[in-house]
Amino acid sequence: MPPATVDPAFQKVTEGVQVKPNPYGPNPHDFMSNVSRFKLIESTLREGEQFANAFFDTEKKIEIAKALDEFGVDYIELTSPAASEQSRLDCEAICKLGLKAKILTHIRCHMDDARIAVATGVDGVDVVIGTSQFLREYSHGKDMNYIAKSAIEVIEFVKSHGIEIRFSSEDSFRSDLVDLLNIYRTVDKIGVNRVGIADTVGCANPRQVYDLVRTLKSIVSCEIECHFHNDTGCAIANAYTALEAGATFIDVSVLGIGERNGITSLGGLMARMIAADRDYVLSKYKLHKLRDLENLVADSVQINVPFNNPITGFCAFTHKAGIHAKAILANPSTYEILDPADFGLTRYIHFANRLTGWNAIKSRVDQLNLALTDAQCKEVTTKIKALGDIRPLNIDDVDSIIREYHADQNNEIAAAIQA
Amino acid sequence: MPPATVDPAFQKVTEGVQVKPNPYGPNPHDFMSNVSRFKLIESTLREGEQFANAFFDTEKKIEIAKALDEFGVDYIELTSPAASEQSRLDCEAICKLGLKAKILTHIRCHMDDARIAVATGVDGVDVVIGTSQFLREYSHGKDMNYIAKSAIEVIEFVKSHGIEIRFSSEDSFRSDLVDLLNIYRTVDKIGVNRVGIADTVGCANPRQVYDLVRTLKSIVSCEIECHFHNDTGCAIANAYTALEAGATFIDVSVLGIGERNGITSLGGLMARMIAADRDYVLSKYKLHKLRDLENLVADSVQINVPFNNPITGFCAFTHKAGIHAKAILANPSTYEILDPADFGLTRYIHFANRLTGWNAIKSRVDQLNLALTDAQCKEVTTKIKALGDIRPLNIDDVDSIIREYHADQNNEIAAAIQA
Repeated sequence: MPPATVDPAFQKVTEGVQVKPNPYGPNPHDFMSNVSRFKLIESTLREGEQFANAFFDTEKKIEIAKALDEFGVDYIELTSPAASEQSRLDCEAICKLGLKAKILTHIRCHMDDARIAVATGVDGVDVVIGTSQFLREYSHGKDMNYIAKSAIEVIEFVKSHGIEIRFSSEDSFRSDLVDLLNIYRTVDKIGVNRVGIADTVGCANPRQVYDLVRTLKSIVSCEIECHFHNDTGCAIANAYTALEAGATFIDVSVLGIGERNGITSLGGLMARMIAADRDYVLSKYKLHKLRDLENLVADSVQINVPFNNPITGFCAFTHKAGIHAKAILANPSTYEILDPADFGLTRYIHFANRLTGWNAIKSRVDQLNLALTDAQCKEVTTKIKALGDIRPLNIDDVDSIIREYHADQNNEIAAAIQA
Repeated sequence: MPPATVDPAFQKVTEGVQVKPNPYGPNPHDFMSNVSRFKLIESTLREGEQFANAFFDTEKKIEIAKALDEFGVDYIELTSPAASEQSRLDCEAICKLGLKAKILTHIRCHMDDARIAVATGVDGVDVVIGTSQFLREYSHGKDMNYIAKSAIEVIEFVKSHGIEIRFSSEDSFRSDLVDLLNIYRTVDKIGVNRVGIADTVGCANPRQVYDLVRTLKSIVSCEIECHFHNDTGCAIANAYTALEAGATFIDVSVLGIGERNGITSLGGLMARMIAADRDYVLSKYKLHKLRDLENLVADSVQINVPFNNPITGFCAFTHKAGIHAKAILANPSTYEILDPADFGLTRYIHFANRLTGWNAIKSRVDQLNLALTDAQCKEVTTKIKALGDIRPLNIDDVDSIIREYHADQNNEIAAAIQA
């Protein structure tokens, strides 16, 4: 066995500072990677409105739009103004707020919808049409020639109004590849700003995503946007892999709310991206506002933030097992790839349980301003673990065991002095 | 533009039946893929016990172990018997249950722990040691030579007792590759049953996973187990990608509970795998028991099943937007890659909202046994959307609008006949 090789990437680790060069940064083999220049299309007010519990009135939409803008999202996507009269009025109202984020609306590939959309004052229009055999047969019933013809008409109309236009297929991963590439090349040639890939049913896996985005990248000169549903739990990973392959724009919503169990979540993607390029993420997005933003949306749609939510789940920075606690106390980077301080959060060492170790207890003894030797800390840890075997412990339980043990030690010393 | 190419994979779609050949099945390029022969190492009673809220008494551990066994998991992993006296007694008790699943316990790479473990009656021992520079410096403080020496001693001891042994590195994706391959080759040569890769901090992304597993697969002849934390939201996708690259065993826990925000969830991985190989998954695992199993564990650790949980989240099979509802009514495969019936669940068309369309309303009219023409359905849909613009709707609201409209139509007909 040769001596351990020390990777220079791990030489300059200090608490809370990302290692440089970052081994989780863009893969140098991905020469078209946009991991370090990705942009967010925030769709809480479109995809999110399709979440089962969602009903946003005008006031709530404006509150959410402003909060998203303060967070720093690049685009805000709104429900189609063709969906209902109030949807149209709300779209106009949000366009007039003067936000830094560009305002998009999302419409069917149809001139009726396009005419209503361009009249609202949006900065861009996201057009979508089903291209899978399923959707062509059971949804709109049109063939690829019809789709191409409609797309050209709508795109040229929207462009003639001087606003951005994206063309996306729907259910892209169940669409015929030749059909897809044909339509994407057609719309690219007539000057669409972005083409979109949508995993509408949430079936795609990361390497499929990589292959499709790389292939598409070789066909079009415009930028690529991706939209991933989370039915099979891969929405965040697929988004990251799409960026590696050369996509630039990722659709997200707060907490991932959307149709069924939703899409790539804003917070989850922030966790993924800050591990890859902390400087870029911190330069663009106000991560300290993430928790409030999630709470705002969660309250609006009457859900709880999931216990296991990346970053803001209640235990995302809680360390419990003895060996974890020991190493975290010595250097937080041992068991954390994310720094809670980047999100205005703090880590927590869970020492009140039977899996605890003496290092965690020693740390608690120090916090209590008591003096015990290492040997004494080990002895009191044994007592704590014994009680933890019988029932759940809280911090008071542990503290009282420590204080009692400490008092006993002092009494013994006092007795020894008196003797 | 050429005529649309029809993929033969999409020719024989019937409701609820997976398309064959399955375009989401194992990628034919992955000649070492184990997507269709993966096994589960269920760690709710080890990793899950490290979840902040977890305290399982003996009775609860036995209840969970039996439920996992009924579900059909291949292995059940238990907390180290060295963690506490009750942990040791519980391990012995579960070994005596006579479950079909093999029982494992998870220990540090240390002879003290190994001696306690083999005495409990387990079928196998999972050994782990930190190999990253972080853990070598801040946790155990040992070099790679020491690690190799300890590993050999522990492995030979466990093997001499005729039980299975796995050796895993910890924080594998931040460990030096040469160190890793050296230690894995060493332990493979002395006959370890499995080697493990652990993304202990949740930093890995899918293509990194693929590369590391493929590389490891070329070095060892034993099988590969993978353990993925979910800090950056990729635990399910990473597990799938590891199987594509040739890993066989995936560590999961119910709802993903574990240190911090946890690991690959059992239910999430089932969603991912059933999309890839429905026959294999249905042949091994009792998916109808998933919801009860999740509720059992959620209740035990006092958490809610996340709103966006794959499969069992409350809205995982709820369809809302008008165009989704229309197509789902015509053929559920249009917007579903998973069949809720496989899990004993049902889909729901959410029609009581302003995004609704006339196809969903027509379906509701039919359910109410009322007769309206398509034109009438469109008219009543306009009324429903107008109310949905003002406030959230419930089903009663929609039904009363439909009934009132229906009554008005009949009154008009009656009036016309009388006139």
